[in-house]
Amino acid sequence: MRRFASTVVVLLAAAGMLFPALLAATAADIVAAPTGVTIPKGYRNWQVVAPSQRDDKDEIRVILGNNMAMKAVRTKQLPFPDGAILAKLAWKRAKSAEFDKTFVPGEPQRIEFMVKDAKKYAATGGWGFGRFVNGAPADEKEHGTCWPCHESNVKGNDFVFTRYAR
Amino acid sequence: MRRFASTVVVLLAAAGMLFPALLAATAADIVAAPTGVTIPKGYRNWQVVAPSQRDDKDEIRVILGNNMAMKAVRTKQLPFPDGAILAKLAWKRAKSAEFDKTFVPGEPQRIEFMVKDAKKYAATGGWGFGRFVNGAPADEKEHGTCWPCHESNVKGNDFVFTRYAR
Repeated sequence: MRRFASTVVVLLAAAGMLFPALLAATAADIVAAPTGVTIPKGYRNWQVVAPSQRDDKDEIRVILGNNMAMKAVRTKQLPFPDGAILAKLAWKRAKSAEFDKTFVPGEPQRIEFMVKDAKKYAATGGWGFGRFVNGAPADEKEHGTCWPCHESNVKGNDFVFTRYAR
Repeated sequence: MRRFASTVVVLLAAAGMLFPALLAATAADIVAAPTGVTIPKGYRNWQVVAPSQRDDKDEIRVILGNNMAMKAVRTKQLPFPDGAILAKLAWKRAKSAEFDKTFVPGEPQRIEFMVKDAKKYAATGGWGFGRFVNGAPADEKEHGTCWPCHESNVKGNDFVFTRYAR
């Protein structure tokens, strides 16, 4: 069995040399947060719900949505339908070197996702929360902070802070 | 001739009642800035180059790009190819009512476009600039302020301030 396993590993490694892009995509998919949420493929290409900015953390952000989420925010459909995913990309604010008083994205801080699945995530308003720093998921304790804040502040908007910016 | 013209108007009005969406799209297209730049169809659905923020104007922005522009910013292709268009959407910063220290888009301030056409806009670095407030183009004097600022500050990046935020 052990020899068989080793052979499989060697074959997979060889396949990796032949199809590195394929394996990279698979590797990205299997990075799961303690909630089960993974980094959705192609999220950086999603449309914009809105930018935002936080003074206390000195961060600038943009909130994106997959097609189902964008349709929901545009039509103000509440609750969001199963399959809707929101992404938040956060960077440290950095002073533009080329234009005074302007701030642009500096060091990436984290990417976060809210995945709607009313049944799977019934205990947290139907949303699965995922936080990733440098591609790695944050720990369970950190994930425990997402839901209480969304629950107490934005119950009236299906627990979503960001509104569509026209 | 006058009666003929009246008939045409009546027919067009009737068509407008039958195909209001069609006429609306056409109307949006013909709003041109003094530079000839118009509001590109579907720009709100474009992908994000980066968010930004300005302290002096108390604004939050997001810069989007059409497919050609996104490919260029991702691959750092300079100069940008003809057909690339960048869009800047600017809002007043508004304090979030639901989360302290967070700022979100408030009142829309303007939308602006940079359209690359090396031949048509040779006098302004190959870029046509368009600024629109509430859907109406700004005047010629205001448009005259775009190019000098881009020319003097970001010549090394094909006159584009915003870089792709990863």
